[in-house]
Amino acid sequence: MEGTLDGGVVRVGGDARQRFYDSSGYGRPDGAGVVLAPVEAAHLLFRDDLDAVDGMDLGKFLAATDCVVRFLVYKDFRERGFYLSPAREGWVDADDTRAGADLVVYPQGNGPWDDEIAYRVRVVGERAAVSASDLGSVVLAVVDEESEITYLDTSRPEMVGHTDYDHPTGIAADLLEDRTVLWNPPKDLYERAFYGQRLAGRGAEGGPLQLSLVETAFLAREGVLDLDGGAETVVERGRAVEGERFDRRLAVYATLRSEGLVPKTGFKFGADFRTYADVESVENLGHSEFLVRVLPAEYAFGPRELSLDVRLAGGVHKRMAFALTDTNGDIDWLAVERITP
Amino acid sequence: MEGTLDGGVVRVGGDARQRFYDSSGYGRPDGAGVVLAPVEAAHLLFRDDLDAVDGMDLGKFLAATDCVVRFLVYKDFRERGFYLSPAREGWVDADDTRAGADLVVYPQGNGPWDDEIAYRVRVVGERAAVSASDLGSVVLAVVDEESEITYLDTSRPEMVGHTDYDHPTGIAADLLEDRTVLWNPPKDLYERAFYGQRLAGRGAEGGPLQLSLVETAFLAREGVLDLDGGAETVVERGRAVEGERFDRRLAVYATLRSEGLVPKTGFKFGADFRTYADVESVENLGHSEFLVRVLPAEYAFGPRELSLDVRLAGGVHKRMAFALTDTNGDIDWLAVERITP
Repeated sequence: MEGTLDGGVVRVGGDARQRFYDSSGYGRPDGAGVVLAPVEAAHLLFRDDLDAVDGMDLGKFLAATDCVVRFLVYKDFRERGFYLSPAREGWVDADDTRAGADLVVYPQGNGPWDDEIAYRVRVVGERAAVSASDLGSVVLAVVDEESEITYLDTSRPEMVGHTDYDHPTGIAADLLEDRTVLWNPPKDLYERAFYGQRLAGRGAEGGPLQLSLVETAFLAREGVLDLDGGAETVVERGRAVEGERFDRRLAVYATLRSEGLVPKTGFKFGADFRTYADVESVENLGHSEFLVRVLPAEYAFGPRELSLDVRLAGGVHKRMAFALTDTNGDIDWLAVERITP
Repeated sequence: MEGTLDGGVVRVGGDARQRFYDSSGYGRPDGAGVVLAPVEAAHLLFRDDLDAVDGMDLGKFLAATDCVVRFLVYKDFRERGFYLSPAREGWVDADDTRAGADLVVYPQGNGPWDDEIAYRVRVVGERAAVSASDLGSVVLAVVDEESEITYLDTSRPEMVGHTDYDHPTGIAADLLEDRTVLWNPPKDLYERAFYGQRLAGRGAEGGPLQLSLVETAFLAREGVLDLDGGAETVVERGRAVEGERFDRRLAVYATLRSEGLVPKTGFKFGADFRTYADVESVENLGHSEFLVRVLPAEYAFGPRELSLDVRLAGGVHKRMAFALTDTNGDIDWLAVERITP
């Protein structure tokens, strides 16, 4: 059986509708024949269900249509037992094409004639830049240079916790380079609300408390700290060592605290913050749930760095969240996790 | 007991030599007194063994001497039971100051009067850039924004393996976008030497083989592949999609293969390669030992990215190696791992 390339699709006549669409969900009906997207025709060539397209075998067809990366993902879903359709205009819901999906995958047992969708999939090579603002409702299928596929599900997480604490006011603080020391802090500031770290170490009872610059700036703005030059001096110090990244990190820190979460440094995990949803006391601290990386709103990921962040978070049983933060401090949250379809 | 700040050191008279140097390894003898580096004086102030330096308490002294980050690391080693000395000229071996160490740490039970050294420590804040060329013989102590310390040991690893394979010649290959397909490869190319990936998937017996661009360029240069335009066409394709990074990655790939290691993509770990030292067959493949990231020779790390890479490698029980690669393809290897002193 042969097909014909015609304006970006492959047409197959004869009884192709029954053989390819009705029984296996390839393409769209076209009378008794079918119209196939290039990845579908490539897969039928790969399976020897099509003999050729305009005389081309699989190798020549892939070279002619530049669809090898999408073909690999299409093939992988087929091998996992899914039917799926290229997200071409008119083939699938306009919402799905708008969301940047390349493929629409149906639940196992379903097909293009059903209404249900399991995954909206966006396909990229590992060298492509992926705009953060395009993510949040699609599964990213990254095809690496050796043609292995990593599936990253993206969503918009709710960042909400239940930590509650009545902040004191007017505590004296000393700014020392890029950190602060409170020489006589109220015990609860650390033990109850988990601000800072004891100078004498983790197990210490009382004594001076060290704060990071973001903690200091946040607490100074809240009126908790009394320090020379006020919050603005701290923010200036932050900008001096981190540039405008400091403003973004402070906006994220303040938002997390105001939502009842406790953000602490994520340095050991290569992140900006780790977050605890529910802190009653440092003594009875649970595990942190999220790793948070703060990024500009218009950020474009390299798939490799995304793979690194998500892999690390998974390895320590935390979820990876990106805080896409614009210059006004408005934040869009993006969660990314590895899945096996 | 009080000290006096004098040209960057703190002098303490009386019986300070006996109290601080002889019994606890602080400073250097100065008659019956001692000369202390600022971090040492800060630590004695912190312990209340010194009452003041020129009337300053710990807070004022730290503010005046800008040594808070080094003080935190000094204090941490003391709390772990080590004696240590600031790597000041004339206090320690010239080799140690040249290697970029800030602190020289003696084995537990030893002190400045012995010859042995446990760690040469370089101290940085998490916001500092660290030149890769300065690493390889020091332990990097990174003080994060919340004053937690991460210790990263750096060394120069031997990258050598024992994989042996007689390469065939003249195999036909098709370049498709940024990867290659061999439609009729000899079985051993994959099964024995672990080049590429079966198009039909991991478990497939035989069939077409996909190669990455670096694999293709390497094999084309070795005369194994016969493809339109030869190795240069592949290298040009690589540069088109990756820029000069492709040349560096190819140099590292070729070096690893020539040393008997098998490099495969490290994408799932956010690295350039993972390496196997000893491949007999893909069927009986062990675990890969190293994750490799390829960097320009003059690269400067952000401590946070270093923390991310090293943490991830540790989590999957692999060692993290950086291939510092200059434009001639000469490579300096750097291994980094997290330690607890």
